[in-house]
Formats: sequence, structure tokens, C-alpha cells
Amino acid sequence: MLAVVYVGRENVTLQTRERPVIQDKEDAIVKVTLTTICSSDIHIKHGAVPRAVPGVILGHEFIGTVTETGEAVKQIKPGDRVAVNVETFCGECFYCKRGFVNNCTNENGGWALGCRIDGGQAEYVRIPFADNTLTAIPENVTDEQALFTGDILSTGYWAAKLGELKPADTAVVIGAGPTGLCTMMCARLYSPSKIIALDTDRKRLETAKEQGLADIILSPGREDVVKRILEETHGRGADAVFEAAGGSDTFELAWKTARPNAVVVVVAMYEEDQILPLPQMYGKNLTFKTGGVDGSDCQEIMDLIACGRLDPSFLITHRCRLEEIMGAYDIFENKREDVLKFAVKP
Amino acid sequence: MLAVVYVGRENVTLQTRERPVIQDKEDAIVKVTLTTICSSDIHIKHGAVPRAVPGVILGHEFIGTVTETGEAVKQIKPGDRVAVNVETFCGECFYCKRGFVNNCTNENGGWALGCRIDGGQAEYVRIPFADNTLTAIPENVTDEQALFTGDILSTGYWAAKLGELKPADTAVVIGAGPTGLCTMMCARLYSPSKIIALDTDRKRLETAKEQGLADIILSPGREDVVKRILEETHGRGADAVFEAAGGSDTFELAWKTARPNAVVVVVAMYEEDQILPLPQMYGKNLTFKTGGVDGSDCQEIMDLIACGRLDPSFLITHRCRLEEIMGAYDIFENKREDVLKFAVKP
Amino acid sequence: MLAVVYVGRENVTLQTRERPVIQDKEDAIVKVTLTTICSSDIHIKHGAVPRAVPGVILGHEFIGTVTETGEAVKQIKPGDRVAVNVETFCGECFYCKRGFVNNCTNENGGWALGCRIDGGQAEYVRIPFADNTLTAIPENVTDEQALFTGDILSTGYWAAKLGELKPADTAVVIGAGPTGLCTMMCARLYSPSKIIALDTDRKRLETAKEQGLADIILSPGREDVVKRILEETHGRGADAVFEAAGGSDTFELAWKTARPNAVVVVVAMYEEDQILPLPQMYGKNLTFKTGGVDGSDCQEIMDLIACGRLDPSFLITHRCRLEEIMGAYDIFENKREDVLKFAVKP
Amino acid sequence: MLAVVYVGRENVTLQTRERPVIQDKEDAIVKVTLTTICSSDIHIKHGAVPRAVPGVILGHEFIGTVTETGEAVKQIKPGDRVAVNVETFCGECFYCKRGFVNNCTNENGGWALGCRIDGGQAEYVRIPFADNTLTAIPENVTDEQALFTGDILSTGYWAAKLGELKPADTAVVIGAGPTGLCTMMCARLYSPSKIIALDTDRKRLETAKEQGLADIILSPGREDVVKRILEETHGRGADAVFEAAGGSDTFELAWKTARPNAVVVVVAMYEEDQILPLPQMYGKNLTFKTGGVDGSDCQEIMDLIACGRLDPSFLITHRCRLEEIMGAYDIFENKREDVLKFAVKP
Repeated sequence: MLAVVYVGRENVTLQTRERPVIQDKEDAIVKVTLTTICSSDIHIKHGAVPRAVPGVILGHEFIGTVTETGEAVKQIKPGDRVAVNVETFCGECFYCKRGFVNNCTNENGGWALGCRIDGGQAEYVRIPFADNTLTAIPENVTDEQALFTGDILSTGYWAAKLGELKPADTAVVIGAGPTGLCTMMCARLYSPSKIIALDTDRKRLETAKEQGLADIILSPGREDVVKRILEETHGRGADAVFEAAGGSDTFELAWKTARPNAVVVVVAMYEEDQILPLPQMYGKNLTFKTGGVDGSDCQEIMDLIACGRLDPSFLITHRCRLEEIMGAYDIFENKREDVLKFAVKP
Repeated sequence: MLAVVYVGRENVTLQTRERPVIQDKEDAIVKVTLTTICSSDIHIKHGAVPRAVPGVILGHEFIGTVTETGEAVKQIKPGDRVAVNVETFCGECFYCKRGFVNNCTNENGGWALGCRIDGGQAEYVRIPFADNTLTAIPENVTDEQALFTGDILSTGYWAAKLGELKPADTAVVIGAGPTGLCTMMCARLYSPSKIIALDTDRKRLETAKEQGLADIILSPGREDVVKRILEETHGRGADAVFEAAGGSDTFELAWKTARPNAVVVVVAMYEEDQILPLPQMYGKNLTFKTGGVDGSDCQEIMDLIACGRLDPSFLITHRCRLEEIMGAYDIFENKREDVLKFAVKP
Repeated sequence: MLAVVYVGRENVTLQTRERPVIQDKEDAIVKVTLTTICSSDIHIKHGAVPRAVPGVILGHEFIGTVTETGEAVKQIKPGDRVAVNVETFCGECFYCKRGFVNNCTNENGGWALGCRIDGGQAEYVRIPFADNTLTAIPENVTDEQALFTGDILSTGYWAAKLGELKPADTAVVIGAGPTGLCTMMCARLYSPSKIIALDTDRKRLETAKEQGLADIILSPGREDVVKRILEETHGRGADAVFEAAGGSDTFELAWKTARPNAVVVVVAMYEEDQILPLPQMYGKNLTFKTGGVDGSDCQEIMDLIACGRLDPSFLITHRCRLEEIMGAYDIFENKREDVLKFAVKP
Repeated sequence: MLAVVYVGRENVTLQTRERPVIQDKEDAIVKVTLTTICSSDIHIKHGAVPRAVPGVILGHEFIGTVTETGEAVKQIKPGDRVAVNVETFCGECFYCKRGFVNNCTNENGGWALGCRIDGGQAEYVRIPFADNTLTAIPENVTDEQALFTGDILSTGYWAAKLGELKPADTAVVIGAGPTGLCTMMCARLYSPSKIIALDTDRKRLETAKEQGLADIILSPGREDVVKRILEETHGRGADAVFEAAGGSDTFELAWKTARPNAVVVVVAMYEEDQILPLPQMYGKNLTFKTGGVDGSDCQEIMDLIACGRLDPSFLITHRCRLEEIMGAYDIFENKREDVLKFAVKP
């Protein structure tokens, strides 16, 4: 079968590989029906993800159809259309019991797919802990609506939950790329009175506005963002700030646009250490929540897609076939053609 | 000035009264611009509210314009358009500090207006603790949008908050009268995947559906409501149930439609004791939350009206002048003409 | 082997039975080393527990040593000293994932042991879902300290958690029998400034005081308990009330001794419906939490025993051998000899 | 009267000053009966607290007797023995209503005493917002027990609350100075199974152990602290970490000794920016809570002292008279004579 392989630093190629088989009784084999490229794949390509194993098939954001299941799989059965979670997890360890599946202590637990074990930029993929990792897609949900369930939509959902938003609050989301847009969409579930989106890319900001995800859009550099946010919040700052951009400037914006006693959710994956200026922010009493998605709410996310309250399919600006994915990598990595996300059909 | 007076049991009349004056330095005088009749007024008329004082001017749900303030009033000033909270509260006692303003220990605290002290079915009204009791109405909010802020919309908001709803949950609301409809509207703020409304009045159910407040509407008596709710909830029952009808049959429906470990919010004001069949519900591990609104979130409610996320003005099915209010009482009490709420202009 | 069998209503006898064997790959066989009689056993004997199956071996509160495990058991191994949870649970269903193991949807889930499947008043017992149901006993914890982990101590722990106690709060515990005493012990973990114990049995109250579990002890009937509690709480009532007695009079005491906006935890198993006088308590805004223990915190309980912060072994007032258990039943049921709990050695 | 005055950087002297008088109707005048020196006073002396105003009387941790009150003061009256809160706060603004009194927006709100307005290292002091700032001391609480209520004990209480500790958790407290010891004492209120104290000063660690505040004491530098903590926590790390030391090395220890998904409370006041190594801690999903005490729980703290559950009086290692305080400053600043805290009598 065709598969995108991480050969080594700056070396990702489309290869022919053997179809995977069941290895453990909790496994399932999934025929991939739609897959996509995530910015983490680009991080891996750059060699910035130490735990990524050379030779691994990439891809951790995809959906498919189950073709085979191990004998201990109870909920999922062959023929099921399923969304795949970025995290495969045992469901039994200290962390899994608390919903912290990103820290599952099983050797196949946490973010393994497309990183430490073969992922879903391929025709078929083996899925460990199938009952935990797969979520059935209801009939009325399309493939394109379901595609992001397990990764960036889970990330937005997790971030929004961490933000402790209450109705009528003001949320600032820094970064209007795919993750930022998903975060806005999920923050909306908590009914803030205002979502303020920040990005230097006007096109992305306008998408946020047009999709009804942001009420106010601001461009750092072009305007005094901190001042504008204070004006919009009775001089206080935002009740919750979501940092989905990943730079030093945006990290600083995050704590500066937050009101005292706010929650700052650090959603982005950073490539560099950040400065925490504790003397300067002393008395501001901020809470910082850091880390990567705990993908433990896929059923809730799927229910919300099914009932029409979440729909991330507008993120798909480009479509291609698996044979063409290397060209897609190029467009996606270099943010050409106003790309947000690709939908890739094996 | 004209005022509706509770003379005694089954005796409510429109009278001429003196205009009120400032009595305490935290008072304000409000010229009433729009007022309404609440089902609690009917309870008072029937003599079913022991603490109601004969001779009191009725009315605890109204808006107006401030004409005068006591010297200690800091936030509110003459000329302000304001919504009035059903509860006047000190803001300093044990309960107020915790947001439990319904149990404010001040002699003028809790539900006093239109019950123990003169209320707002009149041309003018004196408001104790003006800074706590009054909420400024922004320019872009109409009188009819703001009218219910302090009482039934606060009740719906309080109830929804008690329900501990999470995104994708299923909520059952029993009773699609004004309070039930406000509860659905506020439950929506927490993004349940389904709101199921129950009422024997089809017209009210249809209003719930048309206004986008309920996803599913069911009529007890005409169909097996418990069975239908189980079908809609994977055989489990609702994650939260809001009882806004106030009868023994609906109290029973409340705990029967709740899933194990659900929250049942008893929103209605009951005229009779209820049976809690603990042996029958043993192991179902239900939480019951009882009582009357803590009107401590009026600012948040007003912000949500201002940004368009709440709008209860559709509840106004009838309009009249204060001179005509006794006729309005008759229509409202007897639920004639498919009335939901009156808007009464002094 | 010897076993106590529930033959039918009012008919419980000591019989000889076959030793159990592994039936499922998640089972374990436990050699019982210490067991006890619980008031629920008496309820079963009286025919008041409809789901109890005639012919079942009684006993759901016991500890032992693992002799054999099914092939899918991962954590527990032969030779382990273990405390057994009253609830056997799958760990995978909707309820188990939320910690609501009392409502586990598996056919062997929830309270099954000694009720629907053979229990632990016997020499050996088969334990389904062994990894979830069994908790290893550390070396420094004695058998008598560990005996109550899975049932009444879990109940006290669960109740205390439901009570939402904060440091410096006042807790009222109604009933100073074994369950009430465990509730006090666990309420202590949240550092209330006062625990007030109520019982008509002076001896039990004095035990509560001597063991440092109650700060104040009161006898309904002998003194005006409501008045005394108001005096001790600045006229407000208790921040949390735990009803562990199970009568109509004590149910009424529960909501009367609670302050407005308090939590009332209904811990006891009631044999009769109760009256919820909603009109009388309107505006008091109480929360009632009902039901039976979710035994999902046994590891935490065991850790707290191991570090010396919990020690329920003083509850053991009587000891005997399994051969003598029918006499123990008689003493326990009739509360003779100031019995609190028996420790029975097979 | 005698008073310690912050003349300017590195210049603190004992002077004679006018006795303060009531300036606002919410003021009280307090005759200081016991006062102390806090490490923040040393920070001010070093010029490291920009908002400190030269010429101000120092002291924000003290108790006294009320001699006079403004006309709007309701709860407190002349003759009352009172503990004084480090923060004077209005009780009415956005932050005060949420308990975030450190960010009170009033010009006299937040930490003002002994920093921006005259404090309590003097014979008399004027206290704004007396009803909020003063807590009555019950008869059975001694001056030495009450002395730390408003500042370091409030800090420990606030930190422990932020830590989200549950029974049986493991807490690490870095720094066994006065603040660290108070944090341990308050963490104990949540019944962790283990409190692990870290300090390079063996004497202070031994005090922590002797006072029953720490279960395990470790010395960074002398042993591999991270390794030891992993051993004590099933290889996971602490459930909550409290950083009360304030150095770069201790900041690093804080996040390294925390388990994934733990809360790290940054209690100390830092003089330098810190590095937040987000790439290195990616996936550890830590929450950092930063800032200074919100002193909004003094009544609860006083209740806990009164009932014997808190007693910080052992911190007083040195006693002197106000006339001798400059010598005390010297001993305290240079940590001579194993000093923890001084009790200074005006």
C-alpha cells in the first residue's frame, strides 16, 4: 500500500509498504478513507520531535472504516465508520482513569500514531486499544465533518475546557490557524459574550469572523492590541486567553491581554523556551495551563457534530489524492494558496 | 400615582398611592417604564405566600429610569435606564458574599419587592441597595428585551447553572411556560446536544421548538415520555432535569427521566409537599437542587442580551397600559389567549 | 467450605458449599481472611432488598488473600493480601468512566457480591473484575484496619466527598452507628472546624467523642437539637448535613439543621418513602444528594490508612469464628452488647 | 508614637510620628498589640518593591485593639481584639466580589498597608475598609496564635487552596521558611497522605518534621531530590508542588518534581524572571498558578485557629519590644540565630 514515511530529518517520502495486521487482541485494522496533514507532521519533518522514530508512517489525523478487530475489542466492529484519536490509550492506568490520556503509561499510550508507531497517511493502519481510540461516526456526519475529531478539534475542545469559561466572559484567542479556529469554535460552546481573535494574517482573521467564530478581530503590529482589548473589557483584560500561535511575542501577548486572575491556556507547541517574567506579573495572579491535548472527549465532540453545534469542515480549503500528498505537504508547510487544511483521499 | 395593591387574599386592586421617596442612603427612586405580571403575583393573590404583606404594592419584574439616588449610591445615577433585580440584597452578609442573595440576612434582603416592600406595578418605586439591585441597560438593548432580566430570566440562568450541564449533555425541561422557556434558553448557553421539552400544552411546546429552545418536544399523557427519553439517551435518561411545572406528577417525571447520578433542579414553586421515594430510587444516586433564584448574575445576563446570545422578548404575547392591568391579571391568571407574558406600560 | 446462605426471607443459615472456581478471565479467587456483617445483610434477611437472590452466599465486606487469577488480570496476583470492594465493576462503561461504579451497566456490575452473586461470608469467594475490585493491602496495614475499606469506609468517604466540605465548615452527622462514625472520620479529612454528631444512643455518641470524630454530641429527644446547632453556627445551621440514620424523624432533622444553600447527603438506606416539604423549605435552596456508595476510591482510602490518617479498627467491638457467625448475626441485628462491628475469621 | 519608617532604599529607621486619625467613614484606628517583620519588608528595604512609597510606615502583619471606628463601620467596634489583613479591600468591585481582593480596584485596595499607606510597625495604625480588613480574635486565641493570620498564614491558606489537593495526594513544598511552613500547615487541612518538604537548611527541615508538618524532608544538593520524590510517588511525581523559596533552581525543581497534570503553585515572590522550558515539559500538561495572596479567608483561618486545627505560634523564635526592632531587622534579614519570626511588642 501507499504510505508517507518519515525517513529522517527533512526527509519524508511516499513509499510502498506492507499492509498492517492485527498484533494484539485489542487492535483494529482501519482502511483510511480520509486523512490530512497536521503542523506536527511538519515539526517531525524538521526533526523537532525527538520521540518520532525514523521509518515510521506519518499521520495522526484521519478517519476510516474498520476491516478487522482483535478478539478483545468489544464496542467497535468491522464495517464501522470511525474517527481515530491522536492518542491511543489503555484506559486503565492512573492517568487514563483521570482523563489524562496524553500521559497514558502504556508503551503504546499517548501520542504514538504517526510518531512512534505507523500512522494514517496510508491506505491502512493498525490501531491499538481500538475501543478507546476509535469513535463511531453517525450516518448524518460526513467524512469531511468528522476528519478533525481526533486531533485539532480535540485540541480546541480540550483547550476550551481548560479555559474555565463562563457565560458572558471574554476570550482572547491568539492565532487564527486551524488550531486557533477550532479553539474559537469550542470556546463558543461556553457562550462567552466576546471572542477576540488575534493574528497577523488578515485572511485568517476574516475567516474567523465570517464563520462566526470571532466577534472582534485584531492584528498585532497594525494596532495596539493590548489597548484595544482593555477597551473591550472595561479596562480589565480577557477572562481567558488561548495561545495557539507558539512564538515569544505571542506568549507575551497572552499574559498581557489576560485580566488579573485569568486563565492562560498555552495550546501551541513551542519550539523554544519562554520567559516567565514573574516580578513583572506579580500580583496579577495568573494561571497558566500548558501541554498537549488529552483526547478523551471524542464521543462528546462527535455528538456535537451530529447535532450541528460543531462543524469544522470549512477548514478544508484543499483536496487531493494520497498519490499527490507530497505536493500538499509543500503547500501546507509554506502556507501557500491561503491553505488551512487538506483533505487527502487514499 | 397608580399602583396595584395586594389588599388581602383574593383582593388585588388598582389604587392611587403617594410617590415613594428616598428613605436610606443606599436607595434609588426608579420611574417604571415597563412592568409585568409574574405567576408569583398570582400565588400572592391566592394567599399562598405567607410573607406577603397586605397593603403592599405588587410587582417584582420591571425596568425603569433612575430619578434620584441616596448619597451612598456609587455606580448608579439619575438618568440611567435600569433593570431591577427581584432580590434587593446587602452584598456584605455571609450569604451575599457567596452569591446566595436570596438568603441575604438584611431585613430588606432577599425577595422583598412587591412582597414585603412596595414593588414595581406602579409609576415609581423605591429600590433599596440600589448599587446591587439595579443593572444598567446598554443602549442597544430594548425595554422589551431587558424586562425579564431580574426575575424569570435570572431564574432560568440560575437553574441552568445549578444543572451542571456540560457540552453534548441531554437536558430535560419540564414545563414550557415562561420560566421553563427561560430555563431552556439559558441551558442552551452550556451547549447540550439535546434539550427535550415536556408540557401538556402543545402550543407552548411548539413555541419552544420554533424559538430554537427545544430540540425535541413531548407531551406527557399523549405519549410514554419516560420511554421516549430513554430512547433519545442511549437508554440512560437525561444528564440534567429541570422541573419548572410544579405538580406531583411532574416531580415524579423529573426523577424518572433523570439518568443515574444526574442533577434534578427543582425550579418551580410548589404549593404542596412532595414524596421522595428513596427506596425506589436507591442506587440511582440523584442530586436534587431546590429553592428560589439567587439573582446575582444580572450583569452577565445583560451582557448576553447585549451581544445577542439571549433574547426573551418573544415571551411578550400581550401589551397594555397600567390602567388596564386588572384585565391583564385576569387573562394571565387564567392562561387565556395563549398568553405567555404581558408588557405593561405605566 | 462453610458459607452463610440467604435461603429466603428471614432464613439465613450456615451451610457447606463447593469452593468457587474461576469463571471469567478477569476473575480472581480470594481466600477470605476476615469478614463482617453489614446492616445491608440484615436488610436482605428481612426481604427488603428485592434484587437479592435466594440461595446466594452473603457478605460484601471482607478481605483476603488471592489464590488464583484469570488470564486477563494484570495488577493483582496470587499471594496478594487484598481488600474487596462492595462493587464489582467493569471500568469501561459510561458510568464507570465517570467514577459512578454503583451504576456499572455490566451484568456483574454494581453491588453484586453477597446479593446477586456469592459473597464473602465464606472461606473462598470468586471476584469478578479483579483488577478493579481488589485493592492491595500494604504490609503496615493490619487485617482489622483494612476490613472496612470496601464498604462502610468507602461509604463514609463517598459521603464526605459529596458533602463539599471546606476547611472551617460545620458538619452535622445524624447517626453514630458504624456508617455515621465512618462518615465523621472521612469528613474530618476536609478539616471542618466542628463535627456535630446526633444519635439517641449515648454510648455511640461517646464513642464518637472519645475517638476524636465528633466535637459536639447531641441527643435528639433529650435536647432541642435544632436550637443547639443554630447556636453553634452563628444562627445559620450546618454547612453540610449527613443523614446516616434512615428514619423519617432523622430525614426531617437533616434539612432542618442545614443552613440555607447547604448540602444534605442522604447516606442511609431508607425502608420508606420520605416527605420533601418543598413549600416549607422554599427559599432555603438546599441540595440533596441521595443514593448508595460509589466505591471508586479504595486506593486513596488504603493510602490514608497506611499513612495513619484513617483507622476504623476501633469499630470492631466483637470477634468470632465463621462457625459462630449465626450468633454474631443475632447480636448485631439486635444491637446487643453495645456492638458496633464484628470481625469474623473463617 | 514610635514607628518604623521606610525612608528610602537601604534606609529604614525608627522615628517618632503623629498618631493616625480617622480619614474615611469606613476607617478604624487600631492600637497595635503585636507586630512582626516579614520578608517583604526586607524586599522594600532593598528597593525591590517599586510601589513602596518612601516615607511610609512599614508593617503589614500585626494584630491590635480597635480604639475608634468611622461611622460606616458596622461589624467591628472599639475594644475588639483584631487581626489585620495584609490587604485592605472595598468588597464591592469586580475582583473583590470574586474573592480576588489582591486586585481590588479601589485606590486603597490590595496590598497597601506598610507599602503605600502607613502600616503596623508602630503604636497605632489607621485601617481602611475596617469591616473587610479586620477579623475579630476570639477569647481563646492568644495574640501569638493570631499574629500571622492576615499575611503569611493567609498566604499558606491561599496557596493550599490553589493546589487543588485531594485526600491521599502527595504534596511537595519547596522552602521550609515561615511561608513554606505555613503552606505545609494549610496543605495538611486537605489530608494529603504525604507532605515532602525541601530545603537546604537542615534546621528548618527538622522544624517541619518536629511540628508534624512534613512527613519526609529532603535536602537538594545533598541528595537526588527528584529521584527520591519519584520513589515516594510510584514513579509519578507530586500531585501538587508549592514553590515557596523563590530561586531559579527551586523553580526548576518545582516543575521537575510535579507529576504530569499536576498543579504547581508559585507562592514565592521572585526577584528575577524565570525560564519556562515549554518544549522540555511538552506533554507534561502542568498548571502553574502564580501571584500573591488573596487574603479573603481570614474568618475561616481564625475559626481553624480557635478550634485548634491551625497553630502557627511555634514560628515565633524571637521576641522584642518596638524600641528594639532595628536589631530584630538585622537578625531577621541575615537569618541569624535560626530565626523564623519575631514577635514585636509596641
